[in-house]
Amino acid sequence: MKRNVLVAQSGGPTAAINATLTGVIREAGKHEEIDQVIGACYGIQGVLQEKFINLSELVDTDEKLDKLRVTPAAALGSCRFKLKDIAEDDSQYRQIIDIFHRYNIGYFVYIGGNDSMDTVAKLSEYCRENGIDDIQVVGGPKTIDNDLMGIDHCPGFGSAAKYITAVFAELEQEMCVYDTKSVIVVEMMGRHAGWLTSAAALADIANVDVPYLIYLEERPFSIDRFVRDLKEKLKDNDVVMIAVSEGVHDENGTFICESVSSSKGLDVFGHAQLSGTGKILENVIRDRIGCKVRSIELNLLQRCASHILSATDIEESECLGANAVRLAVEKQSGLMSSLRRVSNDPYEVVYEGVDIRMVANAEKKIPQEWINEEGNGVTQECIDYLMPLIQGEMTCHFKNGIPDYMILK
Amino acid sequence: MKRNVLVAQSGGPTAAINATLTGVIREAGKHEEIDQVIGACYGIQGVLQEKFINLSELVDTDEKLDKLRVTPAAALGSCRFKLKDIAEDDSQYRQIIDIFHRYNIGYFVYIGGNDSMDTVAKLSEYCRENGIDDIQVVGGPKTIDNDLMGIDHCPGFGSAAKYITAVFAELEQEMCVYDTKSVIVVEMMGRHAGWLTSAAALADIANVDVPYLIYLEERPFSIDRFVRDLKEKLKDNDVVMIAVSEGVHDENGTFICESVSSSKGLDVFGHAQLSGTGKILENVIRDRIGCKVRSIELNLLQRCASHILSATDIEESECLGANAVRLAVEKQSGLMSSLRRVSNDPYEVVYEGVDIRMVANAEKKIPQEWINEEGNGVTQECIDYLMPLIQGEMTCHFKNGIPDYMILK
Repeated sequence: MKRNVLVAQSGGPTAAINATLTGVIREAGKHEEIDQVIGACYGIQGVLQEKFINLSELVDTDEKLDKLRVTPAAALGSCRFKLKDIAEDDSQYRQIIDIFHRYNIGYFVYIGGNDSMDTVAKLSEYCRENGIDDIQVVGGPKTIDNDLMGIDHCPGFGSAAKYITAVFAELEQEMCVYDTKSVIVVEMMGRHAGWLTSAAALADIANVDVPYLIYLEERPFSIDRFVRDLKEKLKDNDVVMIAVSEGVHDENGTFICESVSSSKGLDVFGHAQLSGTGKILENVIRDRIGCKVRSIELNLLQRCASHILSATDIEESECLGANAVRLAVEKQSGLMSSLRRVSNDPYEVVYEGVDIRMVANAEKKIPQEWINEEGNGVTQECIDYLMPLIQGEMTCHFKNGIPDYMILK
Repeated sequence: MKRNVLVAQSGGPTAAINATLTGVIREAGKHEEIDQVIGACYGIQGVLQEKFINLSELVDTDEKLDKLRVTPAAALGSCRFKLKDIAEDDSQYRQIIDIFHRYNIGYFVYIGGNDSMDTVAKLSEYCRENGIDDIQVVGGPKTIDNDLMGIDHCPGFGSAAKYITAVFAELEQEMCVYDTKSVIVVEMMGRHAGWLTSAAALADIANVDVPYLIYLEERPFSIDRFVRDLKEKLKDNDVVMIAVSEGVHDENGTFICESVSSSKGLDVFGHAQLSGTGKILENVIRDRIGCKVRSIELNLLQRCASHILSATDIEESECLGANAVRLAVEKQSGLMSSLRRVSNDPYEVVYEGVDIRMVANAEKKIPQEWINEEGNGVTQECIDYLMPLIQGEMTCHFKNGIPDYMILK
């Protein structure tokens, strides 16, 4: 009997998560074990609420699939929802399995980050322990943070890194327009890993010879050392570019951005002014160095910039979705679809499956040896790792000059 | 005798100012009256310092010209420098004319915004009054603010508007990912005109049906009315998108963003926390409505996003540069190269020259009748005006996945 595939998305949006969804839909059509592809809206929460749509019908042409592939965010919607501990309360699991059986679902692909892989781990474990062998649960990776274990790099990261590279290249041109001393501080996302921030190093190696200072979450941050670094660079240069992770913290683990949530930091309405890390450093520079300075927080813009995508990222993201379906059909429940870099020059990856338990709730950081001795930049090894991930240009579709997306829900 | 063209750039960077420079270089090659094209680095200040480069030699192939065309910022560098009043002190003018004669400069094209057109006005007037008829001074328009008089729309604006449209389209997808009430506030540049902010309306008409509230500098802003508008929209919608000009102010002319520069708004280092308008509104929403809210300041990113250009803007910008050279060769000193929209459907413009005195130091605002009655959106007439300006997609050049620019100075 043919079975249906259920697919859902979870966690924060990316520019590539819908490419993985596209891979799932396209690959499902190639397997005679599979009947329909059903999408659950709003992640596992939507599964529990049976918020289902028929993707085989909704996305039934190559034209629609191509459009979905480069639509940003998460076309099925997302959630931040953790399943209960099985030992304490298995009612959610029984409910999910009941729903799966009613909808004839034999394969469940859950696309998300490390929290979402916790759901895959728990659900596949529940099936295994209860002898439910007609439902295969597999994970599809996704996160701009690039912090998943068990995979060389994460889908969505390459496009975000390419966006960040382009932004730094542009800002560098901006900064060089006037012949005065000036500094720009750009804050990237990454509370627990500096991967996004490290992408600034790719802009550093092109165009004009302007020094970069790159501060990653992986090294303790000291404001005094920062001021010393910057003064040193300003001696011989008019312009200095600074990239900083939102999550930089001192040796005691206190985030730099927490240092302003004092009673003094209130606006006229009496609100605490929770400045970002970049804003704090802007103020430090103005105060202790006194040159022209501006800070920019990339904020949500870095997550879904589908007007500048890495073609490599989009292609790999789609392949990871297809690979997830293959793993499910091969009854490899409890795995996450993954890729391994087998060669860097020429760049080549192979697709495989990794045990979900090594991925769930873990975080991959930038290796210490990829950070320079001064803690204000990355090594060539880091650049070699990043470079293939931003190759190739691709954009979302446009209609009358405006981004034109595939809307599902 | 053949004469040289001198070209310089001034004011804030844009993504299209180098397309105008490209137009100057290309067109100059077509006129036998012209020998070399010389570039002055850092605007009129660089002219006074004789910081010259030979553009005919530096940008001598179509490949280099094509690359320069989509390079952001201002490849010659810029300045913020106002010439002295002629009546008070004409020494700068005498110095400039002396330099022009020494370098055999018969044509001077100055590309910039309304402050820069003041330089063109003064210099051309000085020549006229002093019988210097062998030097033609013309202006090339440029500003993302779109606030120049005497021209239908400004080069650089279309690309910035396209970037803003894409950003709003992406953020809309982001916001619709969770099924919770949430609001986003995006702050655009525009201290004195709301043109950039109005571009958000272009994203509103595509993709999903999410309400937009658009607040322009051209209407007095009231926080109470803003809260009322938003509450009304949130009744029937989960997501509301808010676009606001940095320059919105109350009926007395007090900028909303000035309302926090009080002694209370200090960070732990004792700095005044000069919040942007968007941040203030974020705090107002959190306080008086209490839903999920985030604010984003587009900052410099909207000025030079050459990874998403309006093809229409780049083409017109280049044509305006070429037209400036033609005006100069025709000895039409004291004009600004301009364009007039002769038809909107199909869209068609003609190139002409306008008296620089109607441009210098003036500002064009959004007509009141293009703003809706509630003061929180624009009319169809405004959308019809904007729409042709963002048509066509174009990007900077890339090399190894990284933006690759034409570097001149």
